[in-house]
Amino acid sequence: MNNAPLSGLYQPSLALLTDLYQLTMAYGYWKQGLHEREAVFHLYFRKAPFNGGYAVAAGLALAVDYLETLHFSEDDISYLASLTGSKGGRLFPDDFLDYLRDLKFTCDVDAVAEGTVVFGNEPLVRVQGPLLQAQLVETALLTLVNFQTLIATKAARVRDAAGPDDAVLEFGLRRAQGPDGGLGASRAAYLGGADATSNVLAGQRFGIPVRGTHAHSWVMTFEHELDAFRAYADAFPDDSVFLVDTYDTLDGVRHAIAVALEMRKTGHELGGIRLDSGDLAYLSKEARKLLDAAGLPAVRIVASNDLEENLITSLKQQGARIDTWGVGTQLVTAYNQAALGGVYKLAALRTADGQGWDFTIKLSEQQAKTSIPGILQVRRYLGEASQPRADMIYNVAAASPLPPAPVLIDPSDSTRRRPVHPGAPYRDLLAPVLRQGRLVQPLPTLAESRAFARQEVAGLDPSIRRYLNPHVYPVGLEQALYEFRTQLMLEKRPVRPA
Amino acid sequence: MNNAPLSGLYQPSLALLTDLYQLTMAYGYWKQGLHEREAVFHLYFRKAPFNGGYAVAAGLALAVDYLETLHFSEDDISYLASLTGSKGGRLFPDDFLDYLRDLKFTCDVDAVAEGTVVFGNEPLVRVQGPLLQAQLVETALLTLVNFQTLIATKAARVRDAAGPDDAVLEFGLRRAQGPDGGLGASRAAYLGGADATSNVLAGQRFGIPVRGTHAHSWVMTFEHELDAFRAYADAFPDDSVFLVDTYDTLDGVRHAIAVALEMRKTGHELGGIRLDSGDLAYLSKEARKLLDAAGLPAVRIVASNDLEENLITSLKQQGARIDTWGVGTQLVTAYNQAALGGVYKLAALRTADGQGWDFTIKLSEQQAKTSIPGILQVRRYLGEASQPRADMIYNVAAASPLPPAPVLIDPSDSTRRRPVHPGAPYRDLLAPVLRQGRLVQPLPTLAESRAFARQEVAGLDPSIRRYLNPHVYPVGLEQALYEFRTQLMLEKRPVRPA
Repeated sequence: MNNAPLSGLYQPSLALLTDLYQLTMAYGYWKQGLHEREAVFHLYFRKAPFNGGYAVAAGLALAVDYLETLHFSEDDISYLASLTGSKGGRLFPDDFLDYLRDLKFTCDVDAVAEGTVVFGNEPLVRVQGPLLQAQLVETALLTLVNFQTLIATKAARVRDAAGPDDAVLEFGLRRAQGPDGGLGASRAAYLGGADATSNVLAGQRFGIPVRGTHAHSWVMTFEHELDAFRAYADAFPDDSVFLVDTYDTLDGVRHAIAVALEMRKTGHELGGIRLDSGDLAYLSKEARKLLDAAGLPAVRIVASNDLEENLITSLKQQGARIDTWGVGTQLVTAYNQAALGGVYKLAALRTADGQGWDFTIKLSEQQAKTSIPGILQVRRYLGEASQPRADMIYNVAAASPLPPAPVLIDPSDSTRRRPVHPGAPYRDLLAPVLRQGRLVQPLPTLAESRAFARQEVAGLDPSIRRYLNPHVYPVGLEQALYEFRTQLMLEKRPVRPA
Repeated sequence: MNNAPLSGLYQPSLALLTDLYQLTMAYGYWKQGLHEREAVFHLYFRKAPFNGGYAVAAGLALAVDYLETLHFSEDDISYLASLTGSKGGRLFPDDFLDYLRDLKFTCDVDAVAEGTVVFGNEPLVRVQGPLLQAQLVETALLTLVNFQTLIATKAARVRDAAGPDDAVLEFGLRRAQGPDGGLGASRAAYLGGADATSNVLAGQRFGIPVRGTHAHSWVMTFEHELDAFRAYADAFPDDSVFLVDTYDTLDGVRHAIAVALEMRKTGHELGGIRLDSGDLAYLSKEARKLLDAAGLPAVRIVASNDLEENLITSLKQQGARIDTWGVGTQLVTAYNQAALGGVYKLAALRTADGQGWDFTIKLSEQQAKTSIPGILQVRRYLGEASQPRADMIYNVAAASPLPPAPVLIDPSDSTRRRPVHPGAPYRDLLAPVLRQGRLVQPLPTLAESRAFARQEVAGLDPSIRRYLNPHVYPVGLEQALYEFRTQLMLEKRPVRPA
């Protein structure tokens, strides 16, 4: 259940969840006889989101589900057959559509495990196989991995701000970007560190714990707030959290206390109260005092209202007495940066004789946007207690083997170089996921990926985790790759007289 | 096809696409015997997005599809039966789940047509019917209408910036918030004014024209850029747009021209070139000169790269020679404001004797967030050429009929009052959509709603459409409603000595 959401959620197929140009290029490759040429693409982002120091990789299980079930249904084929060009003729001929009808995804995929802490320029997914197939899946892979990674990263930051003891609830569905914007966000938020969601469909599909109590309308339905609380306690005597700000927050707290004391007489305890507006620092402290004075120290205080990591940090610094953070819009839409700019770039192509590789590069006016050629792997060097020290991107298909003591070179500042001690411990981040389109071994469950993400983020130095001007974690190209890339850039860039 | 996307896209049902608290409240109402009490909820936002002067209502067809197909499947019921409370007992008893199993949506729904220009505080959707049902659908209605309205509004702004003659292509799927974040965005972008999408699934599901050519990887696959362009022209001789910035943009333009002239010899014309990086003002002007000098004045220039309404306006002011605007991330995620804060508030409840109404209000520390009681309608008064002059929110269930010359009062500044001339022309914005859960008449097609949106936005004064500090369109409460609301606020707000 945890890892097969999309194929179950969408019907009959997601093959058309792509940009038209993937299909026009597919036809072009097929027409040129290039469709089976072996190609290598990498999916990566250039810069961690939120001006942060890291990202939490996510979305692989959704991507694998998409790839494993990829096929063109008869409806899909009919639709493609209906498309016309500017002259009114068919865009795609029948023999090409016959080819698509039989297409299955047979590429090899290597990827970083969900929950891994990653940095700019590091491939999260590597796809190697027939050019047509490897290209075709670009858009869907980006949609899935970009959004999941974005939200998992946001959730990790929120979790970090809330600290290890507080609960974080995600309840952003109503402000999410569409039904699956909400569903996908709930999944990624849980992976990144949220404890539960309000989204019942996400609970069902992904096994995420679901939480929730009542809205203002519940209170407004009854003549008096006290009646509303009593009625809710009648329905959920052991699972009530009262929303106290429908009319006046502190009066609401007093009414909650009155009902909590009535509940106690019948052997039940109020779970909590929720503050949803106003000065959360002041109101939580006042509410805590009132609750404690009434002998209700175990009643939790839940707070919500446009919360995100900076506001949570500020409330904690002000001594707010909040036990549970309800986070919605800001988390599920990654409001302050609503998209991760992940890209998917061709990096290697078999030579026509099938023996070697042509490594390819995309130039840009900005050097930071120039792609990295090769068949890439990321080696993470580890320090004491396995803390990450530096990452090296290298070409596993390079002409020469890695030297025993590699040197990392920052691709955007070649004077930043970092030698690696011979024998330094490391792990390689990309691992085989699919071979010939088939899963090599079962993926971790969502709960396992979530635990891994917590461990990964906790293993980062606090200077890298901080929100403002974080320390830049060192990521470099292996020296030979750096030099090869520079040479390729010089070859491809035209020389113009000044 | 155009208006039945969700029930086809998702399976088996969307009943669980909701916050848990809708279900816990549903159980509470059922347990209290309040579930059949007639209630009225309004869906509205408080402030137009992007600091803009208006919004374009959207999402109604998706909402209707959701409401018409709403039911709890056996899987849904099983999942709800599996939920436990803090003491380990079942959250929902079997007799309540039996009730849900048979539930159908039988409310009346009145709504503003998709494409209508709307303003803060105006109900876009009014749901009237059994309390349990009307409450249950809150989350899904908000998710659908919030996101669709947000993106349709963004698209209307982008369309306005591009002007009536340029084409606007939406191709944001890869950066969208999940698969349906992309699919829903394509729909709303088209409704709001985009001409086409790259998203093939959106083309299939919604009948939106699809467009696209090739990526950088197409160029990188070939030894020379010229070969890449020739190969693409071979596949699509009448539908080619060449992406020219893989290595060097102006060299790319020259290569495109060379191939365009070869194409002409075989009776075909190049459709366009695409610029995807660099200084779009400079490059488009240089490209235009080169194309014109080569006798290719009909080759269009397509531009993309984080475009949005302000950048498009700036490029036009700089004299950029761009014919087609490719808009992605900024449009599909509404990047500069990634969520619309629409809410859904209880406003009226039948009295226990079933004869009258209790009008309800939610207070807030901020007066702007206080809800409006009543069964609301929006009357739009029209000036010359039917241009909107002012909107009045009034209670159709008020004790007294509307006066012949009503007075509008700004709810956030009661000194702003605007009398309406007796006999002033008007139209009421909310129209019957569902009665007893059944569609009153077919909804407009997406293309019809799109045409209506264009007409609606064009009918607004330019001062209201401008991006920076737009003129505030007058929206007021009808005087009796204003006074009733004020009285209710005074009743509900506790009086504390200073």
